[in-house]
Amino acid sequence: MTTIFNDPSEFCDDQLAGFVDLYADRLREVAGGVVALRSGEPQVAVVVGGGSGHYPAFAGLVGPGLATGAVVGNVFTSPSAAQVYSVAKAAHQGRGVILAFGNYAGDVMNFGIAARRLNAEGIDTRVVLVTDDIASAPDVDRRRGIAGDFTVFKTMGAAAAAGLDIHEVERVGRAANDSTRTLGVAFSGCTMPGASEPLFSVPAGHLGLGLGIHGEPGIRDEPLPTARALAGTLVSSVLGQAPAGAGNRIGVILNGLGATKYEELFLLWGAIAPMLRERGHRIVDPEVGELVTSLDMGGCSLTVFWLTDELEEYWSADAYTPAYRKQRAPLQSLDTAGPEPVADVVHPERVPDAGSAARELARTVLAGLRRASATLEDHENELGAIDAVAGDGDHGRGMVKGASAALAAAEAVAGTAGAGWMLRVAGSAWAARAGGTSGVLWGAALEAAGRALPDEADAFHRQDLERAVCSFARAIEELGGASLGDKTLLDALLPFAGALSSSLSETMDPAQAWCEASEVATRRAASTAELRPRVGRARPLAEKSLGTPDAGATSMALILTAVARDPEVLATLGTRETVK
Amino acid sequence: MTTIFNDPSEFCDDQLAGFVDLYADRLREVAGGVVALRSGEPQVAVVVGGGSGHYPAFAGLVGPGLATGAVVGNVFTSPSAAQVYSVAKAAHQGRGVILAFGNYAGDVMNFGIAARRLNAEGIDTRVVLVTDDIASAPDVDRRRGIAGDFTVFKTMGAAAAAGLDIHEVERVGRAANDSTRTLGVAFSGCTMPGASEPLFSVPAGHLGLGLGIHGEPGIRDEPLPTARALAGTLVSSVLGQAPAGAGNRIGVILNGLGATKYEELFLLWGAIAPMLRERGHRIVDPEVGELVTSLDMGGCSLTVFWLTDELEEYWSADAYTPAYRKQRAPLQSLDTAGPEPVADVVHPERVPDAGSAARELARTVLAGLRRASATLEDHENELGAIDAVAGDGDHGRGMVKGASAALAAAEAVAGTAGAGWMLRVAGSAWAARAGGTSGVLWGAALEAAGRALPDEADAFHRQDLERAVCSFARAIEELGGASLGDKTLLDALLPFAGALSSSLSETMDPAQAWCEASEVATRRAASTAELRPRVGRARPLAEKSLGTPDAGATSMALILTAVARDPEVLATLGTRETVK
Repeated sequence: MTTIFNDPSEFCDDQLAGFVDLYADRLREVAGGVVALRSGEPQVAVVVGGGSGHYPAFAGLVGPGLATGAVVGNVFTSPSAAQVYSVAKAAHQGRGVILAFGNYAGDVMNFGIAARRLNAEGIDTRVVLVTDDIASAPDVDRRRGIAGDFTVFKTMGAAAAAGLDIHEVERVGRAANDSTRTLGVAFSGCTMPGASEPLFSVPAGHLGLGLGIHGEPGIRDEPLPTARALAGTLVSSVLGQAPAGAGNRIGVILNGLGATKYEELFLLWGAIAPMLRERGHRIVDPEVGELVTSLDMGGCSLTVFWLTDELEEYWSADAYTPAYRKQRAPLQSLDTAGPEPVADVVHPERVPDAGSAARELARTVLAGLRRASATLEDHENELGAIDAVAGDGDHGRGMVKGASAALAAAEAVAGTAGAGWMLRVAGSAWAARAGGTSGVLWGAALEAAGRALPDEADAFHRQDLERAVCSFARAIEELGGASLGDKTLLDALLPFAGALSSSLSETMDPAQAWCEASEVATRRAASTAELRPRVGRARPLAEKSLGTPDAGATSMALILTAVARDPEVLATLGTRETVK
Repeated sequence: MTTIFNDPSEFCDDQLAGFVDLYADRLREVAGGVVALRSGEPQVAVVVGGGSGHYPAFAGLVGPGLATGAVVGNVFTSPSAAQVYSVAKAAHQGRGVILAFGNYAGDVMNFGIAARRLNAEGIDTRVVLVTDDIASAPDVDRRRGIAGDFTVFKTMGAAAAAGLDIHEVERVGRAANDSTRTLGVAFSGCTMPGASEPLFSVPAGHLGLGLGIHGEPGIRDEPLPTARALAGTLVSSVLGQAPAGAGNRIGVILNGLGATKYEELFLLWGAIAPMLRERGHRIVDPEVGELVTSLDMGGCSLTVFWLTDELEEYWSADAYTPAYRKQRAPLQSLDTAGPEPVADVVHPERVPDAGSAARELARTVLAGLRRASATLEDHENELGAIDAVAGDGDHGRGMVKGASAALAAAEAVAGTAGAGWMLRVAGSAWAARAGGTSGVLWGAALEAAGRALPDEADAFHRQDLERAVCSFARAIEELGGASLGDKTLLDALLPFAGALSSSLSETMDPAQAWCEASEVATRRAASTAELRPRVGRARPLAEKSLGTPDAGATSMALILTAVARDPEVLATLGTRETVK
């Protein structure tokens, strides 16, 4: 959705006004577009352009080392010949003009008319078309230009900045276009300013392979693949269209079309880069990001630019424009040795000595962790759904991650560690793997419980159970800063701890006491549905969360209940009692 | 929609792997995040972090002049204390560590635990919280951190790079946070990797004022305002929360949240910047773009950073990270005089002399242009709807723009210009204002028709009419490169020209001949519904366009018909015939 505008028909002029205000220190508005402030010796003017809606193409690429000027048409519409003429004339520094743009009918006509007029006036003007999109036609000359615009503009911009004459800059630009191939995919359409419906759409759960940057359909629609499969398709398709005589040195662009975000592009790059290297390619100065967009379209494209020595020199050269900045200097003084590796912070190497009572109790702890992990897996989706009402829906997943990491850490020390140590490594692993708020609270609570159970003890008594539960609860209270009634996991935990304490002091059987206390926890967790959250990220969602129980209190009650039903835990609690 | 991933639960690790591959020349992965390669003298380590999904926050801000390291949590989830510890330890250069992050419960706990552990190990570690979001709480200390993360990180990064000690860097960071205020708006929610529904949503046609970067609700939902009104709300709200003693020098960030694109942000900046200046503020090094995002969320935020001399120095300093690059050097040699203004390229100043016959015929031309412009306005929506079937739906708007510009240009020379000159300026204005393919074709056609009618002629005959129409059609054929049957405006125009020629040679009355020929054009335009497009951008949409007539042929027939029905045009055509 394009959302920010005044009069939709003035979108292009209005956005240009803001752009020119922002970058007044490096470029100027002229009729039809923008022109860079000059620096140094006169150079060949490289004037790029096309419709708006593709930022940073085209105005964002004007500056030292790249384009001299950009012609700015209406959204997805070729600029007029008069606009092209005006910008070219203002950009001209006495050494001729190259007009460079993607191969679309309107652009070809308008830039062509301007070129004839400029040549008629004695300004040597050449046209360099970009035709990189392998999906658009079998015949290279009929292909349209998409993200390959960037390789052609960048290379010519650097050649012009290096002082080459117009014949040479034109030759370099044509060589760059001949060496550039792109394939794009679209996940979703874009919406023109003022329109209520997208300009085009892609069937839900599919991608449009080769779909162009204005919604021109491509090769076919396909079900959405994994990132790895998408990488495979892009790499093999683009490499399959390599120009004759292509070598193994390549510049690469993984371009985002607007709504496909950087982290997604990095993830895809993580799959693409090894594939390219496995096929023997050396990747030079890859670019992953937004270089040629289509408003808020979802999708991306892979461009491969086969390099010669000359093309590599211009591809790698410095540039400094509003949207593209590359400088060698700040990286040259870096120490490539990198930081010292940090020792593993989660699992200490040596398990401290433990007495037989502590080692025996550790078996109970392990059984409890197994039961907790299993019950969380059983309820993962339910917990996620509860959390999604007023949170981000990741509580179930986070708890499963934490509990399974805790279990794995406990299993790794089983047999040698006492219960105290086992709880500490389990807590540390839980926090480390789950992250987030519930992860750090559960981690700290388990660690605190572990510290309350000294592994050198000769035997454990009901007071030890009470102390461990109390330490567990206090760690959460102190770290989280919440209180009873704030709609957090404490609303299940504190009533549990209270009920357990009270039953134990009445000499009730510990196993029975735990069971009864866990029922209290379950009831109180359900009652959190009536509460408004008062702390944490959910606080602003107070009203929305009314009627839904707290996810953290729910998972707490589930774990306490599941543990209470484990036969080994029950037996141990019973045994402990008889030992006393 | 977050679309690119393998296993959604591995999204964060997978994207980090790609990021680290891409920027291996400047940073290293360590357990828990990334650390910049060192350069020069040891400095205070500024370690930033939080959940993933906010790129370039946080890993994209690691590099010379900015952060020393970034801790990378799961999507929208605090990293664990172990991750923070690990990254801080790797980033530490012997001069202490500052941990900087937005004020969220999970982050406060996990970074806090890590800080205690680092301090216990003798590494001087300080915490600087970011609390810039004015919508999140009345009490400044309870506010959450959003785009203001950037001013605090940037300022501390520059202070650390300048060699300040840990006390000073901490002091600068706290001063930056105390001087930073942000208000955000959301237009649409974001979708977590693997989720099928957005994490939250904003009612259609509304914005959420003050809605946070994880969907935390804000102040209220409002109907979508114009860009100007939105600018007013943001500016007055943020300035209304200025810190005590604030001066008039400000750094400004207009931050995009993901799906709100650069051109929209520039448009909004075009409204915001003058408002800030009118209120007496001097804007220093504003940033408009994506600095703290939320996956593919739609929305933006305005941050104002009140500067002192010291804060301005660090705000303006050079930095060079994956996502944020600022270098003074490339701009220093620019010639601020700017390009020479280019003379108006559309309207030549002097109207050439014309005979009385040509001036009289110009009245007919003017009447025809009025009629064409009026009929296009009447049919604008219909033409747009036809075009939207297999195009971008802007044909109606483009034709109205072009015809009204042509009419205005003709009216400006009415009375003095001959018909030939009038058609030429009308064509030039049409092409210049409408842009695009139809604009350039109509413009060139009118200019060609004008050149076929010499203004020095004593009288005009039926052959002149035939020649003008013929020149009009030939210009479109030559420029557009299409032929009859390609589903373009030629499919109405060429049959019209043929019918007109044939009737005129049969000594039919020219007025009657035009009328009958325009009926041919209308029939043939309707018949283009049966054709598949063979040229231009619509070509790939061939199948989709079957059953719908070509928009350009339709508007051509509409104009030819409307002109034929104008009484003044009809009378003139009749008169010319009697003169002969």
